[in-house]
Amino acid sequence: MTAPRLSLSRRLRRTPFSDGVEAAGVKAYTVYNHMLLPSVFRSLEEDYRHLKEAVQIWDVACERQVELRGPDAGRLMQMLTPRDLRGLLPGRCAYVPIVDETGGMLNDPVAVKLAEDRWWISIADSDLLYWVKGIAHGWRLDVLVDEPDVSPLAVQGPRADDLMAEVFGDGVRDLRFFRFGRFDFMGRDLVVARSGYSKQGGFELYLEGCDLGMPLWYALMEAGRPWDVRAGCPNLIERIEGGLLSYGNDMTDDNTPYECWLERFCNTDSAIGCIGRDALLRVAKDGPVQKIRALEIAGGPVPGCDRWWPLTAGEQGVGRVSSAAWSPDFGTNVAIGMVRVTHWAPGTELTVQTPEGPRVAVVRERFWA
Amino acid sequence: MTAPRLSLSRRLRRTPFSDGVEAAGVKAYTVYNHMLLPSVFRSLEEDYRHLKEAVQIWDVACERQVELRGPDAGRLMQMLTPRDLRGLLPGRCAYVPIVDETGGMLNDPVAVKLAEDRWWISIADSDLLYWVKGIAHGWRLDVLVDEPDVSPLAVQGPRADDLMAEVFGDGVRDLRFFRFGRFDFMGRDLVVARSGYSKQGGFELYLEGCDLGMPLWYALMEAGRPWDVRAGCPNLIERIEGGLLSYGNDMTDDNTPYECWLERFCNTDSAIGCIGRDALLRVAKDGPVQKIRALEIAGGPVPGCDRWWPLTAGEQGVGRVSSAAWSPDFGTNVAIGMVRVTHWAPGTELTVQTPEGPRVAVVRERFWA
Repeated sequence: MTAPRLSLSRRLRRTPFSDGVEAAGVKAYTVYNHMLLPSVFRSLEEDYRHLKEAVQIWDVACERQVELRGPDAGRLMQMLTPRDLRGLLPGRCAYVPIVDETGGMLNDPVAVKLAEDRWWISIADSDLLYWVKGIAHGWRLDVLVDEPDVSPLAVQGPRADDLMAEVFGDGVRDLRFFRFGRFDFMGRDLVVARSGYSKQGGFELYLEGCDLGMPLWYALMEAGRPWDVRAGCPNLIERIEGGLLSYGNDMTDDNTPYECWLERFCNTDSAIGCIGRDALLRVAKDGPVQKIRALEIAGGPVPGCDRWWPLTAGEQGVGRVSSAAWSPDFGTNVAIGMVRVTHWAPGTELTVQTPEGPRVAVVRERFWA
Repeated sequence: MTAPRLSLSRRLRRTPFSDGVEAAGVKAYTVYNHMLLPSVFRSLEEDYRHLKEAVQIWDVACERQVELRGPDAGRLMQMLTPRDLRGLLPGRCAYVPIVDETGGMLNDPVAVKLAEDRWWISIADSDLLYWVKGIAHGWRLDVLVDEPDVSPLAVQGPRADDLMAEVFGDGVRDLRFFRFGRFDFMGRDLVVARSGYSKQGGFELYLEGCDLGMPLWYALMEAGRPWDVRAGCPNLIERIEGGLLSYGNDMTDDNTPYECWLERFCNTDSAIGCIGRDALLRVAKDGPVQKIRALEIAGGPVPGCDRWWPLTAGEQGVGRVSSAAWSPDFGTNVAIGMVRVTHWAPGTELTVQTPEGPRVAVVRERFWA
């Protein structure tokens, strides 16, 4: 299957780093939060190998921020998520599933607590801003909600610390996972967090003010030369190996966090005020009827997974695969799927209906990396 | 500028008509409401010519529906828009700007009033569902809000009536603009409205249940043979000539309806309950400081407009162009832009900064078609 062309328009927003991405020879994009997100530079496999061995700069400006500011910011944040946020200190990040009143997931962002009365929510692919604004309005909360001019840029890969220390000094090496610090770049404060959408380690830089986009891009590119830095992007193969779920691919608003192994972020006994708490209490009691699973698909490389592939056991539908790719490192097709409780035991052999015909798919205990 | 590739994934949803679109040789897509929207079949110019002379079937399933159902459906609908909906009867459609509490536009959909307690909102490109759900929850309204399994398909072009009569009988010819009727297709009721995102006339069919997608597609294709029917899609050139605005391109949540010539849909004196009414009263009194304008750009064909092009008068920034294309029929570059009050008089000569350098742009009294 050859990828079709993407027609560009202002509606699919460019980012402060798009000029750099184009200069680096981006081959394909996806669209994420109405914004361009690079998906391939050389090839999926070459990008994958390089990410695991060197260091890459990723334009993830499409992780738009929803900013909450004001006396009710903390209260609103807790209304949005079943994760108990009372213990979270300023300077910390937290992965927070966002649920509606039925417990269905509306997004799975990272919340950045800048201060008691100021938060950023770094969102996955849905207009979470609309939900948050609607809730704030309907509940008459004393809070401002908007999308600020903040564009994340990620530095990912085993040499990320070396590159970052070159630009921001050795202090950046001391950042612990999901903590952030403020670092200077050309006289401006940048929030820099140890986080990112890969298992190779690295940072996310929250650039405030798009005017410094290309200076930041080139500064990182220049500093990374000794470690063969390249422009990169979230890599399909690497994220499946690592079990990094993708909202819209692997789960939607039809799914509760319990179906996505996010029960550790559901404090249904203490997250007082969470809108979806009552619905999730029910799920917590009964348990989910389906759950995300790692699956190994037999045979040679599968085609691109651009739609749900049904999972069957005999004649019975028991789930679906939502992401799949050939893994060079593990020599098999790695996949993510949603599987019914009756068939989710590790080792269960199922059939997956790919567009090129049925294949054997085996449920795994855990992801690969 | 060659269009880049689009990486397909489940997150960019296929539609019930995607198999037909692919069989028809779609060359490029855009992404709209997390869904594939075809943008080119043969070429922009060939598609344009054919749309104006024959008839096309458009996969516009990406016009997702937000369904409101229940005792408070009508009240909620009025909270969303400054258009006074009291006189709207079941069986009618209405273009309804949706605004937030500041009067900023969140979407510009068509509302379909199925019954007093049941509405569909046929949305432009933003997750309006999230705003509506948030408002319904925060205000404790007695209403169900969700995205139903409804996929619009459009039949557009001068021969649309002939084609539709072939499939649904001559009764379909009597539908008036923005009215809908129910017509049978393979034993299922279809809502068929005289509407669509072109100036060439035609219909939109609201398919309930994606299983009938391809049968409907092929039935229309088969019936249209005498009139050289083809797969088509909203055409950039034709929509600019006709002044059809595109949410996300020509206006965003930064703009009020008054900036978009939608003041006739802002009944600020009578739309009681509209969330943005107070803010819009202020704008109605003062008038907007900028407004959408048709602009003619001098010289040969402009490049693709994938970002805002600044409009200047001397050194002064006075607006921006958001959509532009070469029009074969009018022999000029047609464009849509937002222009400050000081420079929006018809005939005003401005400079537009395209990526290929400055050009003369003249403000027009009205659009071309």
